[in-house]
Amino acid sequence: MRTVGVVVKPGSPEAAAFAREVTAWLQGRGVTVLVERGGDRSIGGEATDDRAALLRRSDLVVVLGGDGTLLGVARAMRERPVPILGANFGQLGFLTTFASVEVIPMLERVLADDYTVSARMLLDIRMLRGGREVTRNVAFNDVVIAKGGAIARMIDLDTSIDDNFVCSYRADGLIVTTPSGSTAYSLSAGGPIVHPSVEVITLSPICPHTLTNRPLVVPDAVTVRVAVHSPDNDVVVSFDGQESCKLENGDLVEIGAAPTRAPLVACPGRSFYEVLRSKLHWGHR
Amino acid sequence: MRTVGVVVKPGSPEAAAFAREVTAWLQGRGVTVLVERGGDRSIGGEATDDRAALLRRSDLVVVLGGDGTLLGVARAMRERPVPILGANFGQLGFLTTFASVEVIPMLERVLADDYTVSARMLLDIRMLRGGREVTRNVAFNDVVIAKGGAIARMIDLDTSIDDNFVCSYRADGLIVTTPSGSTAYSLSAGGPIVHPSVEVITLSPICPHTLTNRPLVVPDAVTVRVAVHSPDNDVVVSFDGQESCKLENGDLVEIGAAPTRAPLVACPGRSFYEVLRSKLHWGHR
Amino acid sequence: MRTVGVVVKPGSPEAAAFAREVTAWLQGRGVTVLVERGGDRSIGGEATDDRAALLRRSDLVVVLGGDGTLLGVARAMRERPVPILGANFGQLGFLTTFASVEVIPMLERVLADDYTVSARMLLDIRMLRGGREVTRNVAFNDVVIAKGGAIARMIDLDTSIDDNFVCSYRADGLIVTTPSGSTAYSLSAGGPIVHPSVEVITLSPICPHTLTNRPLVVPDAVTVRVAVHSPDNDVVVSFDGQESCKLENGDLVEIGAAPTRAPLVACPGRSFYEVLRSKLHWGHR
Amino acid sequence: MRTVGVVVKPGSPEAAAFAREVTAWLQGRGVTVLVERGGDRSIGGEATDDRAALLRRSDLVVVLGGDGTLLGVARAMRERPVPILGANFGQLGFLTTFASVEVIPMLERVLADDYTVSARMLLDIRMLRGGREVTRNVAFNDVVIAKGGAIARMIDLDTSIDDNFVCSYRADGLIVTTPSGSTAYSLSAGGPIVHPSVEVITLSPICPHTLTNRPLVVPDAVTVRVAVHSPDNDVVVSFDGQESCKLENGDLVEIGAAPTRAPLVACPGRSFYEVLRSKLHWGHR
Repeated sequence: MRTVGVVVKPGSPEAAAFAREVTAWLQGRGVTVLVERGGDRSIGGEATDDRAALLRRSDLVVVLGGDGTLLGVARAMRERPVPILGANFGQLGFLTTFASVEVIPMLERVLADDYTVSARMLLDIRMLRGGREVTRNVAFNDVVIAKGGAIARMIDLDTSIDDNFVCSYRADGLIVTTPSGSTAYSLSAGGPIVHPSVEVITLSPICPHTLTNRPLVVPDAVTVRVAVHSPDNDVVVSFDGQESCKLENGDLVEIGAAPTRAPLVACPGRSFYEVLRSKLHWGHR
Repeated sequence: MRTVGVVVKPGSPEAAAFAREVTAWLQGRGVTVLVERGGDRSIGGEATDDRAALLRRSDLVVVLGGDGTLLGVARAMRERPVPILGANFGQLGFLTTFASVEVIPMLERVLADDYTVSARMLLDIRMLRGGREVTRNVAFNDVVIAKGGAIARMIDLDTSIDDNFVCSYRADGLIVTTPSGSTAYSLSAGGPIVHPSVEVITLSPICPHTLTNRPLVVPDAVTVRVAVHSPDNDVVVSFDGQESCKLENGDLVEIGAAPTRAPLVACPGRSFYEVLRSKLHWGHR
Repeated sequence: MRTVGVVVKPGSPEAAAFAREVTAWLQGRGVTVLVERGGDRSIGGEATDDRAALLRRSDLVVVLGGDGTLLGVARAMRERPVPILGANFGQLGFLTTFASVEVIPMLERVLADDYTVSARMLLDIRMLRGGREVTRNVAFNDVVIAKGGAIARMIDLDTSIDDNFVCSYRADGLIVTTPSGSTAYSLSAGGPIVHPSVEVITLSPICPHTLTNRPLVVPDAVTVRVAVHSPDNDVVVSFDGQESCKLENGDLVEIGAAPTRAPLVACPGRSFYEVLRSKLHWGHR
Repeated sequence: MRTVGVVVKPGSPEAAAFAREVTAWLQGRGVTVLVERGGDRSIGGEATDDRAALLRRSDLVVVLGGDGTLLGVARAMRERPVPILGANFGQLGFLTTFASVEVIPMLERVLADDYTVSARMLLDIRMLRGGREVTRNVAFNDVVIAKGGAIARMIDLDTSIDDNFVCSYRADGLIVTTPSGSTAYSLSAGGPIVHPSVEVITLSPICPHTLTNRPLVVPDAVTVRVAVHSPDNDVVVSFDGQESCKLENGDLVEIGAAPTRAPLVACPGRSFYEVLRSKLHWGHR
């Protein structure tokens, strides 16, 4: 642990102030701190050319922001997994589970190599047009294939798993989610909550026209193929709700688990269920 | 019943063939038949300038098409209600409840004034920008205020009913539906089925982020006001999934029951529940 | 307003203490206070033979308890409607909307005849065996016809509305609810929230085997008939989750709106939506 | 494959007639056929003392019946797994996937050792009272802990997973299901569909009072512990909806995956998704 990257939510004075504290503390222990060029210069640390460069050199990344900030960092793990320690300076905090007061004590443990990670599945997504790969992307939470156009009208998504036809979803769209993403968009669409250590992919249709269509949980070793049938509507595929690309009628989206995983530093003594109880107001006894 | 308009689903040879039959039958009984200019000329009848002209002069409109065709006719009822007899030449048939073999016998009864109608609520919708009305529209099934943009991200819709704040829906969108529309998009979003004779408006959020948000049924005498809070996303309001207009951040959508109703000729001996059983495969005993 | 009944949640020292205060305040204004025989004697007031006697003589009933206490009082309104002022000393408070500090100011207004009521629908339920009425009951929130036995197995409930067959629900049971009851058990079963001023009855199946069965909202003028088909299982009909009776295979349950309504004293300036927001944690803006 | 047990749905002449055919065919190939004492004697084969004896000696069990018949056989697999070939003579057929015409050709393949099995998870359930095991059972589809009494009232179920508190479900009950059971009762309660090859346990609350409680998918290596808090209501635990026992306030139900699995003979060329499409009417393209 000689080099630690610090990624800060843009536009958050609280996160930036805390980043200064973290940077100083790390440097005081002889750790090289890397930050993103273009961020708040007062944080200190060495500015890297871009996020890819920061991740290439870091042994750990501290993310100070909301789940949105962490998602962007996690998607970049496809090439080289680096442990992520996320502290919540946003709204949700399903992923950035550390409170700011817990960060320094946890860093102390990480430097002493006294920590565990939760290795989170990443999805690898290929977009094919006429059989040729158009683009390739990665997702930490979910891939959403949905109508992109203005008017409320359903699209048809012919879906197969490992070459077995599943069904043609007639719906607003389809969410293909990792366990991490099960508490994000998929949950709003009626999907189940999946423990992050379960090795599955979940398909949750959005407002399906066929009322018997229900969320489907399949092994993570499968390849999900979604063919777009929507001659009259725009269709868009998006990744973690942060990046997207337009699809054309007949396009094929191929989704499977990526070979690498994104390691999240685990919060000692805080179970996944405690996070659920607190974020979903499940009450106490 | 001296003048009957006949509206035919475009591009359906079966509907056009049947329209010829209906037109000949009506003309044989001395009824003037009006058709839309631009439709299939072989149907016969007098071509009107446009749909508005057709509706202005008709004592009855026969719709030969799917629910989509009927929706377009029904929305035009705001100015002058004309009984609609709809026969199903499309997929769904929740609204076009007559089978083609039932049309001539029913016309016989309508000409003899031996029929009843189901008077269906219409919604009157005003879009306000900076307090000024930008546009006004009507809906038979539903008004949908939803994210129009490409990426899967929620919007905030501050909703009040008769000046009482309801909540700020953080969701993909909000469906405001008539009883007729309860079996359309709202049903896919988890809304209840509402008998067409019930005088209510239903609000069904689409994929709400707040999991305790559930569909809400309110009296039809209310005014629903939805203020758009979505600085970063396109928002679109659409009517019956057929017409739409873009909304800007801060726009207000005002929705209430229209003073006039669209009268659908009732299918004798066929209850709403029979239609549900058959369309939703509720089984038999 | 010469005579006010005070009904107190049994076993609640807080409710009893507050009842003493209310009784003294009312008596100080020359009002006769009636209480139930068998309750806490220190409350003061004149003890009546039973609840029926209390309701027969009262011009107003003050209920100090939870929603459960109010339900019992409201079901007794079938014979003679008496305004109910409910203050929350329980858990939920969807019905007992007044906080204790608001009770005396509201009583002041009630004595001055400066108040409004929300007249709530009651359901009238007849149980028929071999065509003969076995028993008759009333419900304020809901009637639930459900499997009563030990093992998890579905029952069949042949349901018709005004002699039109609806379907045979194959389910754990069926909830027939008033608008007041829409936020109780029906909500847990996936039913919509219905504004109390809407005149409808809602049918919500419990865990239906047919996945396309959805909650159904019908006019309150109908008669719902449910015939029990369950040769191998006990079936039970219950009223507001407080009273119940066993049903036999072939029994018929007939449900309609009762001719009288239960008047709840309205909380000035507090809309139904505010109650929803606060009880369902819908958040604020 | 020298000995094959044949288990026939009681009271089904079609199943018995087909069992005669199967028995004769097997005996013609030198296979010893075992049947249950007390069944239809005309089927032929050697009658065993009871089902346990039949399973102890069989190399394969042919189940001719509905899913209910197969469940009873599968629960007996805890001691010694025997491949099950199930043909549908009942209503559902999620588990008894073979049509009767496919049975003899499949038996031919099984005798030639040309077949695969789908090894299905079994749940091992211990009931503890005052810390002592009262009884122990096994389930193939699901364990349901639910109110057993007459009146519609919720129970509290304090639930933990591997000693991490999850929440106290305030509900009609809780379904703990295997992937096989995900298309049974759990689906009616809003649970997801889980592919049988996924190694998970799913918890689906029945009509939860806390609206944010959603189905929860956890690894199959966990121990789920449910403590009953219900001083005023009967609570019952049931297994596959076929066996049950009463629980007392304070009882603990401990659930985990059993060490052995029940092997179902796979239907060649028929995917799980094809079964879903056909049973759930997901439509075709």
